[in-house]
Amino acid sequence: MSDDVPAISRFPVPELDDLPDDVRERIVAVQEKSGFVPNVFLALAHRPDEFRAFFAYHDALMDRPGGLSKAEREMIVVATSSRNQCQYCVVAHGAILRIRAKNPLLADQIAANYRKADITPRQRAILDVALKVCDAAYEVNDDDFAALRAHGLDDEDIWDVAAITAFFALSNRMANVTDMRPNEEFYSLGR
Amino acid sequence: MSDDVPAISRFPVPELDDLPDDVRERIVAVQEKSGFVPNVFLALAHRPDEFRAFFAYHDALMDRPGGLSKAEREMIVVATSSRNQCQYCVVAHGAILRIRAKNPLLADQIAANYRKADITPRQRAILDVALKVCDAAYEVNDDDFAALRAHGLDDEDIWDVAAITAFFALSNRMANVTDMRPNEEFYSLGR
Amino acid sequence: MSDDVPAISRFPVPELDDLPDDVRERIVAVQEKSGFVPNVFLALAHRPDEFRAFFAYHDALMDRPGGLSKAEREMIVVATSSRNQCQYCVVAHGAILRIRAKNPLLADQIAANYRKADITPRQRAILDVALKVCDAAYEVNDDDFAALRAHGLDDEDIWDVAAITAFFALSNRMANVTDMRPNEEFYSLGR
Amino acid sequence: MSDDVPAISRFPVPELDDLPDDVRERIVAVQEKSGFVPNVFLALAHRPDEFRAFFAYHDALMDRPGGLSKAEREMIVVATSSRNQCQYCVVAHGAILRIRAKNPLLADQIAANYRKADITPRQRAILDVALKVCDAAYEVNDDDFAALRAHGLDDEDIWDVAAITAFFALSNRMANVTDMRPNEEFYSLGR
Amino acid sequence: MSDDVPAISRFPVPELDDLPDDVRERIVAVQEKSGFVPNVFLALAHRPDEFRAFFAYHDALMDRPGGLSKAEREMIVVATSSRNQCQYCVVAHGAILRIRAKNPLLADQIAANYRKADITPRQRAILDVALKVCDAAYEVNDDDFAALRAHGLDDEDIWDVAAITAFFALSNRMANVTDMRPNEEFYSLGR
Amino acid sequence: MSDDVPAISRFPVPELDDLPDDVRERIVAVQEKSGFVPNVFLALAHRPDEFRAFFAYHDALMDRPGGLSKAEREMIVVATSSRNQCQYCVVAHGAILRIRAKNPLLADQIAANYRKADITPRQRAILDVALKVCDAAYEVNDDDFAALRAHGLDDEDIWDVAAITAFFALSNRMANVTDMRPNEEFYSLGR
Repeated sequence: MSDDVPAISRFPVPELDDLPDDVRERIVAVQEKSGFVPNVFLALAHRPDEFRAFFAYHDALMDRPGGLSKAEREMIVVATSSRNQCQYCVVAHGAILRIRAKNPLLADQIAANYRKADITPRQRAILDVALKVCDAAYEVNDDDFAALRAHGLDDEDIWDVAAITAFFALSNRMANVTDMRPNEEFYSLGR
Repeated sequence: MSDDVPAISRFPVPELDDLPDDVRERIVAVQEKSGFVPNVFLALAHRPDEFRAFFAYHDALMDRPGGLSKAEREMIVVATSSRNQCQYCVVAHGAILRIRAKNPLLADQIAANYRKADITPRQRAILDVALKVCDAAYEVNDDDFAALRAHGLDDEDIWDVAAITAFFALSNRMANVTDMRPNEEFYSLGR
Repeated sequence: MSDDVPAISRFPVPELDDLPDDVRERIVAVQEKSGFVPNVFLALAHRPDEFRAFFAYHDALMDRPGGLSKAEREMIVVATSSRNQCQYCVVAHGAILRIRAKNPLLADQIAANYRKADITPRQRAILDVALKVCDAAYEVNDDDFAALRAHGLDDEDIWDVAAITAFFALSNRMANVTDMRPNEEFYSLGR
Repeated sequence: MSDDVPAISRFPVPELDDLPDDVRERIVAVQEKSGFVPNVFLALAHRPDEFRAFFAYHDALMDRPGGLSKAEREMIVVATSSRNQCQYCVVAHGAILRIRAKNPLLADQIAANYRKADITPRQRAILDVALKVCDAAYEVNDDDFAALRAHGLDDEDIWDVAAITAFFALSNRMANVTDMRPNEEFYSLGR
Repeated sequence: MSDDVPAISRFPVPELDDLPDDVRERIVAVQEKSGFVPNVFLALAHRPDEFRAFFAYHDALMDRPGGLSKAEREMIVVATSSRNQCQYCVVAHGAILRIRAKNPLLADQIAANYRKADITPRQRAILDVALKVCDAAYEVNDDDFAALRAHGLDDEDIWDVAAITAFFALSNRMANVTDMRPNEEFYSLGR
Repeated sequence: MSDDVPAISRFPVPELDDLPDDVRERIVAVQEKSGFVPNVFLALAHRPDEFRAFFAYHDALMDRPGGLSKAEREMIVVATSSRNQCQYCVVAHGAILRIRAKNPLLADQIAANYRKADITPRQRAILDVALKVCDAAYEVNDDDFAALRAHGLDDEDIWDVAAITAFFALSNRMANVTDMRPNEEFYSLGR
């Protein structure tokens, strides 16, 4: 690696040609859709088995039909990743949130202090519970379920709130330990 | 469910016969090997796609060859799950640790205060970093890598320390939010 | 001390024959009743005056008649000692709780996350207040008293909740600083 | 105020014409220079005496000659305002940092996790001390001064690190309590 | 400086004769009124521009007419400065509080635990919000405003609660970083 | 109790005549020596057995010969009681510290921020370890013992540091839960 290009991970980053076919194909597909390869794909491809499980889990949660909108799912990611000080996820999912919500301000608002963001009371309740799952899941109780049901979430939606938060608890820790670097493209997307 | 049997999850628990074949087969295989079905399999089977990703991830980390022994991997699980107050994982993986380490005391020692456990200096260093990944991954830095290398871990082993901790950050949150109940069998296994 | 036997304390542990009569007699009585000498007796016998005060205080709280059952008193000990990461008290009083409650699961449940334990609403309220006394006694107020009275505790019972928690705040700190080691017998008692 | 325009403060926001001349002139000057009036000027103009002291203090610290560059001063603001979850200051000073540092990425990097930002070791040391002043000024000691001197800061520069952090400790609290809303212009400036 | 006199600041303390006239005159006026020069004046005179802004801000908040009594303003200072472990402000404003409240006990009570102090329910509510602004201003919300209005505060009074707390968030950090030493006179004043 | 006299405890306070002889005699002896009865004696006399154990423990630690001076023991009490926000112990033992150290300033300095107090490096090291025992005894380790030995403490002295801190961990919690009120005499003693 040249001195001029910052590393995208502390760990070795494989060449596309050295990857198993299915992993490479997933990456190529993303590149074709997005115009670039988000670094999380390259950094995690260092371990193909974990790569497969990671993205299968991600897709199961983020692409699943259900009561939470795509934008609401990304709000959960941005709010909890900010609490976990995960630079990669705040920057990358901030971009995705701007696009999903068609709102150039929301991601920065939520990353800084979600209590002051331009969101609905329902979304505020979702983020309150997501942050509790993030910080003190051992204290989650019936009251939290009731608070979300009061805003029209059913139990499957609440599972999604918890599972998205839990999945990014994993993701944030991997990004922080590997020093995963956000692609420059993300910073300006959707603004 | 009769009133006499405590629920194993807040969420619906599927009947084996209603599950997709691959999920059911995985569960049956565990049952044949262990003599019972750990409740995490039943609770997570509520969502087969997530079930598949969860156990694929689990196996990729816990069964992978590498420098960490099986017992050391379970030590990480028990120590970080205790910090996260995850009853299911402390009890279930406590049992697995007793078996893997052939030591009836170690799991209870680590769950209560790993700094006082009968472990080697290498294992103490591993758990120190695991707890940092658990609590403050955003502060992990070169010093943590150096501390583990000084005990003979290579970078792949350090990835394992981080990834096992990160995976159980997910698992602990799901278990706490779903009120997942440890099987009674776990409490006495390996004592 | 041989290399093979782990120390039970960082500090000198007296021989029984070197102890004042009353201290030795108390220890012998415990040994006769329990079949072994819990290490707390040997570790604290290093300072006979403190030994006498410690066990006098202990007995005044744990053997006193009153509204709290013996099992409930041990629940307070296990829950707060777990919060204080006191290996000795979690292991030793976990054993006593199993015996007092005639329940082999309860101690491990409470040590991991008392909010998920098989306890009554009254016991949950007792542990909520005990943990508050443990962590933030300066915030205890009328609402905490009211919460316990609502479950039938009178003010003497509430004093007991607070005083047992306070006494083990002392005990946990001494055990942690002295590296007090739980006897192996405790791990399997009552299972 | 129409329903369509979000409030910029919980408190009354004065009309420019109703302000004392010096306050109005300051605001007009900013508007001419920036092309818009940052909301902090309008929100704080509710109290002209505090307005005058606030901006006199601000200018004394941010415009003062000294060893810290303008960009470094803004880094301190963004890093500590992010810790204090101050949406206004993260967004507004993030914009100023992008401009001062001629770097479109830096503000988002620092807001998310300054330890992963593209900054020099000297800047990292400055932010480490700034965060300590932000969170635990009572523990600041000779070691912190030595750490900064090792990077070439003299004592006046260290005063600046502390005083900028301290001033925004004030500013962040006022912005959070008043629900001060960042101008939309800030989000895209300097990207 | 002789070895016998403790320094009042880590930073250079100017001679009165070397100060700008307005700064010196302010200090002389205080000395004539109080009989001594509180060290905060000397320590901050190291930077005259900041000195002027600091005391202008202080006076704007502490001398302003409004619903909060002078004693109540000092209660906020003592309670929040104690939380911030600011020796200078606890000692100096403790003295001022004793004088303003004509009560020799109140300052020590509030510094140790304001929840046990001899204050009115209104004052308790004020200090509860002040501590929240001190520790977690990002969570302040409508409920906090309602709690204070219920005790007769209007919005201007609530601004004062917040702004006094915010100003001393600044002051406490400067005093801690500069090792500002309280004058001995303060310890016994008003007892 | 008349409305004019504040209660000294939430719990019943016995009349001297109703107490067992030994308890009454202890109280009378204190009164003859001090000129008043510190309220801790009256509040704890509600439970004579606990009273006896409490004061036996107290005397065993505070009156024991050893390497720690009486003033150093009181420093530990004041510093850790301040951390625990125990108004009774900060005020009462602050007075005793002023007398033992023949220094009217030290108690207030230590209560506010012991790192800024006029104490020796040895005393600073003692208080650093005491605060660690107070807050995180589970992390105390060889380094803490080494730090104190470097200042001439032997292991018996270190036991005293820990045991005094541990005893007041108990005492602070009882005082906070019982709303124990400091006698007015303490506020001015030794100034």
